[in-house]
Amino acid sequence: MEKGIIFSGMRPTGKLHIGHLSVLENWVKLQDEYKCFFGIVDWHALTTAFDNTENLQDHIKMMLLDWLSAGLDPDKSPIFLQSHVKEHGELHLLLSMITPLSWLERVPTYKDQLQQLGKQGKDISTYGFLGYPLLMAADILVYRADTVPVGEDQLPHLEFCREIARRFNHLYQTDVLPEPKAKLSKIKLLPGVDGRKMSKSYNNDIPLNATQQEIIEKVQMMVTDPQRIKKTDPGNPEVCIVHKYHSIYNTEEIEEIRESCQGGKIGCVACKKRLAKILDNVLSPMRERRSYYEARPELLQDILADGAARAGQETSKTMELIRKAMNV
Amino acid sequence: MEKGIIFSGMRPTGKLHIGHLSVLENWVKLQDEYKCFFGIVDWHALTTAFDNTENLQDHIKMMLLDWLSAGLDPDKSPIFLQSHVKEHGELHLLLSMITPLSWLERVPTYKDQLQQLGKQGKDISTYGFLGYPLLMAADILVYRADTVPVGEDQLPHLEFCREIARRFNHLYQTDVLPEPKAKLSKIKLLPGVDGRKMSKSYNNDIPLNATQQEIIEKVQMMVTDPQRIKKTDPGNPEVCIVHKYHSIYNTEEIEEIRESCQGGKIGCVACKKRLAKILDNVLSPMRERRSYYEARPELLQDILADGAARAGQETSKTMELIRKAMNV
Repeated sequence: MEKGIIFSGMRPTGKLHIGHLSVLENWVKLQDEYKCFFGIVDWHALTTAFDNTENLQDHIKMMLLDWLSAGLDPDKSPIFLQSHVKEHGELHLLLSMITPLSWLERVPTYKDQLQQLGKQGKDISTYGFLGYPLLMAADILVYRADTVPVGEDQLPHLEFCREIARRFNHLYQTDVLPEPKAKLSKIKLLPGVDGRKMSKSYNNDIPLNATQQEIIEKVQMMVTDPQRIKKTDPGNPEVCIVHKYHSIYNTEEIEEIRESCQGGKIGCVACKKRLAKILDNVLSPMRERRSYYEARPELLQDILADGAARAGQETSKTMELIRKAMNV
Repeated sequence: MEKGIIFSGMRPTGKLHIGHLSVLENWVKLQDEYKCFFGIVDWHALTTAFDNTENLQDHIKMMLLDWLSAGLDPDKSPIFLQSHVKEHGELHLLLSMITPLSWLERVPTYKDQLQQLGKQGKDISTYGFLGYPLLMAADILVYRADTVPVGEDQLPHLEFCREIARRFNHLYQTDVLPEPKAKLSKIKLLPGVDGRKMSKSYNNDIPLNATQQEIIEKVQMMVTDPQRIKKTDPGNPEVCIVHKYHSIYNTEEIEEIRESCQGGKIGCVACKKRLAKILDNVLSPMRERRSYYEARPELLQDILADGAARAGQETSKTMELIRKAMNV
């Protein structure tokens, strides 16, 4: 049986943190099970940040390093920039002709994001911003992907993509475009070190490229049970961020740690030291891969060029079929 | 001094008629004065006819033959299909990111056309239809054209294009995109043979590829002064379609014809015969050129391929500048 086809991508908006790791770990696994295409979707970055592109190229490079350091293998699946594979844009344009405005206007994230960014004083009600679920649909459909790894929050976008595929096939009496299915992946929801949502802008994140020292500092900032004053006080692991991290990254010792905390046998300082060590074990192989690639800028260029060429082989096949179906 | 740059195009929606001739005659002249790019804008045809593309390829071929038979010289200026020059689509996508939705919504033709087509039971409020002035702007700006030959009715679209160029230059602190100026051309407004607006759908048009016999038949259908019963009755040239055509295509004899009509000295049948002869003189050299090209389908392919390649040289230069300005 032929392997299923997956497209997935991320907007290059800055360096990734440990909260993104489970998505990348999932991608690494999918590389063996599917024919995968991974795109750094730089055109998408323009939907909200068109007026602030000074750092776009840095963000792209950062994202590529983050992906490679997490273990994505460019030999197994093409890794590329969306803007290097022009067919993403061409399919978006052709699909724009058949996409009812109302479908885009009712995408739930559209008005939410407009409002949110409006509060920040940003007016981004541009034509391109309205169309971003369509560009996303084109990203997927241009590979005739049958599977898309998504989190729950992205299901409306995938449903939109499926509707577009159905409408296209119906209008042109064809079966060129498969309706991609969601592959819901378990995302490890990691809070920021202060307990809020992890985000670079709150400075409560642990970046994927954190040094050992940075990990230690960030773990020291983690909020523990505020009722616990002395080591011998019984702690409440349920309200402790350190414990939350142990439960995800230190499953072997988690029971012991919980009991020691509740029994007042392990202090927060020691508990944090153990976590910092564990997290360093997670990130240190990534650091090694990162320095390997960081020292080889030509290799990075080659990876993207090769990725775009291999992606282009698929997308040009798709576009031939699309043009034929539409008589254009 | 370097020549100015012109882009102009037409949507391939069917064969052209004599009412379109003055635009084409104007283009033929402009070929010597400007560096011209002439595009058959097939993607635009999809903005309203996405669900009816069976005849699109025939319409494209017909339009190419109409253009060549009117005397457009592909050696002087590239003649190409929009869909062959992918940068039209890429620039459209990039500009979509900076284009406020409200600018598109307030283009005067937008709501007009929505209403008109709504009356015909057609709902075309698609994303692509809303964006068509932007695609038009990209068509022009991708050549960094400084001049666009337009009729009065298209001035709002050109103004939109100028606004987009200004906004781009302002946002990215650049002067990559010139603001193209209108070159208003005198259009000879020819009524249909029944006095209504000339249109293929009313069957009141004289197609550019009409045979001598078809011209005679169409001229016979022309509405003359209904008060004039006998040849000796004095006629009123002001209400006569035949006279209107004489005044445009037969300027040398127009005074004599007017007087003969008003004096009851020339009958409508004779007057129509003279007009049919005149119109045949206009269209017969076009017929010759048309048969030359019709007999050479490979030449037509070559013209479009060569046109796309030459157009692509300009558009790829523009896109390099655009991408650099946007950091993408």
